[in-house]
Amino acid sequence: MHSGSVKAKKFSVRTDLAVEARELAASGSDQVEGVTVETEETAGIHVTTVNILNELGAERMGKPAGLYVTIESEAMKENDADTHEEIIKLLAQKLGGFNKLGHGAALVVGLGNWKVTPDALGPKVVSKVLVTRHMDSRTLPLDYGLRPVCAIAPGVMGLTGIETAEIIRGVAERVNPEVIIAVDALAARKTSRINATVQMSDTGIKPGAGMGGKRMEINEKNMGAPVIAIGVPTVVDAATLVNDTMDKILAEMTGAVRQGSKFYEMLSKLESEDKYNLITEILNPYEENMFVTPKEVDAVIERLSNIIANAVNISLHPGISASDINRFIS
Amino acid sequence: MHSGSVKAKKFSVRTDLAVEARELAASGSDQVEGVTVETEETAGIHVTTVNILNELGAERMGKPAGLYVTIESEAMKENDADTHEEIIKLLAQKLGGFNKLGHGAALVVGLGNWKVTPDALGPKVVSKVLVTRHMDSRTLPLDYGLRPVCAIAPGVMGLTGIETAEIIRGVAERVNPEVIIAVDALAARKTSRINATVQMSDTGIKPGAGMGGKRMEINEKNMGAPVIAIGVPTVVDAATLVNDTMDKILAEMTGAVRQGSKFYEMLSKLESEDKYNLITEILNPYEENMFVTPKEVDAVIERLSNIIANAVNISLHPGISASDINRFIS
Amino acid sequence: MHSGSVKAKKFSVRTDLAVEARELAASGSDQVEGVTVETEETAGIHVTTVNILNELGAERMGKPAGLYVTIESEAMKENDADTHEEIIKLLAQKLGGFNKLGHGAALVVGLGNWKVTPDALGPKVVSKVLVTRHMDSRTLPLDYGLRPVCAIAPGVMGLTGIETAEIIRGVAERVNPEVIIAVDALAARKTSRINATVQMSDTGIKPGAGMGGKRMEINEKNMGAPVIAIGVPTVVDAATLVNDTMDKILAEMTGAVRQGSKFYEMLSKLESEDKYNLITEILNPYEENMFVTPKEVDAVIERLSNIIANAVNISLHPGISASDINRFIS
Amino acid sequence: MHSGSVKAKKFSVRTDLAVEARELAASGSDQVEGVTVETEETAGIHVTTVNILNELGAERMGKPAGLYVTIESEAMKENDADTHEEIIKLLAQKLGGFNKLGHGAALVVGLGNWKVTPDALGPKVVSKVLVTRHMDSRTLPLDYGLRPVCAIAPGVMGLTGIETAEIIRGVAERVNPEVIIAVDALAARKTSRINATVQMSDTGIKPGAGMGGKRMEINEKNMGAPVIAIGVPTVVDAATLVNDTMDKILAEMTGAVRQGSKFYEMLSKLESEDKYNLITEILNPYEENMFVTPKEVDAVIERLSNIIANAVNISLHPGISASDINRFIS
Repeated sequence: MHSGSVKAKKFSVRTDLAVEARELAASGSDQVEGVTVETEETAGIHVTTVNILNELGAERMGKPAGLYVTIESEAMKENDADTHEEIIKLLAQKLGGFNKLGHGAALVVGLGNWKVTPDALGPKVVSKVLVTRHMDSRTLPLDYGLRPVCAIAPGVMGLTGIETAEIIRGVAERVNPEVIIAVDALAARKTSRINATVQMSDTGIKPGAGMGGKRMEINEKNMGAPVIAIGVPTVVDAATLVNDTMDKILAEMTGAVRQGSKFYEMLSKLESEDKYNLITEILNPYEENMFVTPKEVDAVIERLSNIIANAVNISLHPGISASDINRFIS
Repeated sequence: MHSGSVKAKKFSVRTDLAVEARELAASGSDQVEGVTVETEETAGIHVTTVNILNELGAERMGKPAGLYVTIESEAMKENDADTHEEIIKLLAQKLGGFNKLGHGAALVVGLGNWKVTPDALGPKVVSKVLVTRHMDSRTLPLDYGLRPVCAIAPGVMGLTGIETAEIIRGVAERVNPEVIIAVDALAARKTSRINATVQMSDTGIKPGAGMGGKRMEINEKNMGAPVIAIGVPTVVDAATLVNDTMDKILAEMTGAVRQGSKFYEMLSKLESEDKYNLITEILNPYEENMFVTPKEVDAVIERLSNIIANAVNISLHPGISASDINRFIS
Repeated sequence: MHSGSVKAKKFSVRTDLAVEARELAASGSDQVEGVTVETEETAGIHVTTVNILNELGAERMGKPAGLYVTIESEAMKENDADTHEEIIKLLAQKLGGFNKLGHGAALVVGLGNWKVTPDALGPKVVSKVLVTRHMDSRTLPLDYGLRPVCAIAPGVMGLTGIETAEIIRGVAERVNPEVIIAVDALAARKTSRINATVQMSDTGIKPGAGMGGKRMEINEKNMGAPVIAIGVPTVVDAATLVNDTMDKILAEMTGAVRQGSKFYEMLSKLESEDKYNLITEILNPYEENMFVTPKEVDAVIERLSNIIANAVNISLHPGISASDINRFIS
Repeated sequence: MHSGSVKAKKFSVRTDLAVEARELAASGSDQVEGVTVETEETAGIHVTTVNILNELGAERMGKPAGLYVTIESEAMKENDADTHEEIIKLLAQKLGGFNKLGHGAALVVGLGNWKVTPDALGPKVVSKVLVTRHMDSRTLPLDYGLRPVCAIAPGVMGLTGIETAEIIRGVAERVNPEVIIAVDALAARKTSRINATVQMSDTGIKPGAGMGGKRMEINEKNMGAPVIAIGVPTVVDAATLVNDTMDKILAEMTGAVRQGSKFYEMLSKLESEDKYNLITEILNPYEENMFVTPKEVDAVIERLSNIIANAVNISLHPGISASDINRFIS
């Protein structure tokens, strides 16, 4: 989870998810200039491919230009092995579609804090991917179709005292990966997306402008290698929850406040972003630093890390296919 | 954490904390019949002793008759070793003041799920208390002033398939403790109380009316031995956070809505409980099952478990004193 | 792992494994009276079924009368998913062959200390089996063919202060299971058996005569329900390792010592049990309390717990079959 | 723990501990040329300072020239808080005596695998040291006397696919520490030293010649900053245990084999190193990769990590003193 991201949201980053950004950007219309959107649906799994083509689109979306693939399914958070297999296959296929994935050495990075359950997704994925880079030609079954993969869980700044991007950059300089795959737990702007969405993008991860603006982005420019980010919203911040709920309350109360009261006028005039900002301002600094997560979070994170580790193994190694699901999960 | 407790709240249990119950019960007046309240303040640590004297008081408070001691300090959640020592001493002294603590065998029970960070408080305390019951007369340094103490972390029903109270009852029947000390992470009704409050009571723990009303209370009647509960609110439920924030928003907006709008009238007519219930009804079942917790929850739970384990060790064993803080924390 | 078992071995219990007991008992001959032995081999997996028929056999074997099924495969400790599937199927089939498995409520008990890697097998299995007992008729998909299963990890006496058998008995009295399945990490007498053997028996678990002889056995008589024990040797004790190695050294040195030296005579006259006892006497108490385990123990325990949890799920629930492997492993 | 170190030992590295190296090197005489040795004893704590002055000494000792301070106390592995305080003070004082400790930024590195109990020492220390480097001038209480400290637990090659030294080097290049403190669990050559010895040296850590000889040393030359290594032997390898025990058996059997048997002659002619090598050759590859550790290893590692983290905090930060023991242990 991006520490400081909640604070950051107040100023600039609105959401970690491109599908949400698009909803915010497009509100009212169907099109955002400089952005193409495709959707498909397979077996109850919803796939959205957002392509931010240029600077205009990037500005509109508040996100860097690049490819964003989002896979959504309520079954992700359930104990539903059949649909999980479908999701793994779809994830592996979409991940394999990123040109930047390449064919050489890959560095998988598990962001987040393994001591905080909803933030342990990245480290858990790292503990499950098949690493091969340390094997030499005698032990690495090249005929089997394995490429060199290594993996780190760099920890969080509060525990290391080091910016996470700096650790990754330092390791990447030694390892020289052709691609970096960064897995992270995200904050969503809708409670309904929690643990039910995986987003992949080739634009890297922007940990927000928090901490005095000095947080370094984990992207190709800073890391020296392309970064494919895999993110799963596992929490919403406190302000989001309040905001969502208030919207619903207002919708329910429409009858009562419709008669042109000043309060209704004021509320309806608030742009949704302004309302969100109002709420974060009202929350005290301690509350603002809180997150909201479902109670069964431990089991859900276990399942999600399994799904993602399987997809990463299949898409990285030519010799591993969908018939090997759970086979190389240590 | 009581699973199902959020749902339960909607119907009956309003709060796990007696100080909050009193605020709710007393709203407007200073006195609740059948209830005495004393407060003291030492070095920034606030102590409230609520004594529910009879059935009338119990009904008013929505809590069983008995003694409730609450210790509040913002320093609990900070890394402030000096104040922690003061809190440990105060906790040990107040815990030692419960007559039911006795002098014979004690069973410490750590409720909750060690895999979910804010719910791991109980199991963490159990792993830190000094157990002595298995030592025999040769190895147990009786002269040192140790009483027989044993400890279990029974797990949560979702992982065991067994009501937690049943496990404890089963073990208690074998161990025959003179007292059971049950440590649990609670849900608070105010975000400001999170990780800043310890409540001790001799009335046991009521896991709420959830799960079809069949959850068994962990109290003297059901366990066959007095139960002293030690609870720390480590989360609030989603509805509480929304409720708190809406109250603040309404307070800020007073100017805008004062002019007799129907909406304002409606809102101001809502009893606070009704408003809370309205919010929980609007939240969907998934959201309702969410909890809100601060980001640094892992470090905070570590500190809180240390504070409580020290206080338990000091109050149980005559031979351990405040000068032994951290000495028997394994 | 049975704490105190190493010490105990010196006096009475020779090995936790029936196949080893038989080797010791039969040394020289093929038959042990009162004992039948069958072996089969499938796909490199070796199965030995030892039936101790009566008291005579029990005395000869140093183990209670009953059925002992041992499954051996080097592939258990490797990352070999295909053979693991075969092992799971075979385990489930053999476990299903125990008449005492019954059809009613089952209590799965994970013995051992989850904080010590090679001893965490039992607790890890418990965290992976499908528990259903807490579901009511509305949520339990009975048509799917699930029986009521619950599970506990009672911890170890050093951490709880309570004899493990007492905790299980206490819980069993509340739960009234038709069968108890107790999973435990064992000590082997041969390093080659470590992490490569699963033994199932219907005679329960005898934690050894250690701790002043007061350790209670986990068996049908004491628990009030049949106990099927599933054990995996994950360690050898220090004396075993020394003993094994010395035997090999002596074999290698045969040439040098053959010429009737007193030392050779003395060594060759030593019964193997006496030699073992000599070694344990020479080891100091601290060394004696040591165990030997392979370095990659964490990954191996993860795999073994997966194998056993799958086999337990398949054999307990009629509605779960070999095609559901890994499907209900949370 | 150095993976591959057992294998490595067969060829070159004899022991991780300078005190043991000296015993091996000096066997028979009191002096080793090019090496000075001082010993002191305080309150039952034994301190040995070995100074390897030049290349001659380095060759004799099989260790690089530099300062080695070893602190030995049986109390380390016991739950003896008073002696632990004395050990912490002594460790902090000796650590503070290394000139290379400096006064600028420090990087604490916890080597080892947190999933394998006896190898988790380094990562556990890292989780307990006070990190400050990420605090800025506003939040870092400089007046309090804190220097910038950061910390990483790089994992082990089997899980990351990357040589550990490469990860540290990469991070060090970004962080530019004035000193690196590397904490590691070691293998000892005597079972009696397990968990009862801390060695500090300014020569770095040599992970052995294993893995095809390509393991990179963690030292000043390779890391670009001085490396102070803090090592605790938490295991012995299997061959060591056998060797120690055989020596004792031979000593006991002297009477029986004295009469000039060939076997005795052969054994007595074996140099101790040759005997050790003989044993490792007889052990099969799986056994050779085993380690020996005491059963209560989890509690011992917890205590040892506490001792070392306290000593590191006190020696690094001028504003933290012995009166702050356990105060900054998160």
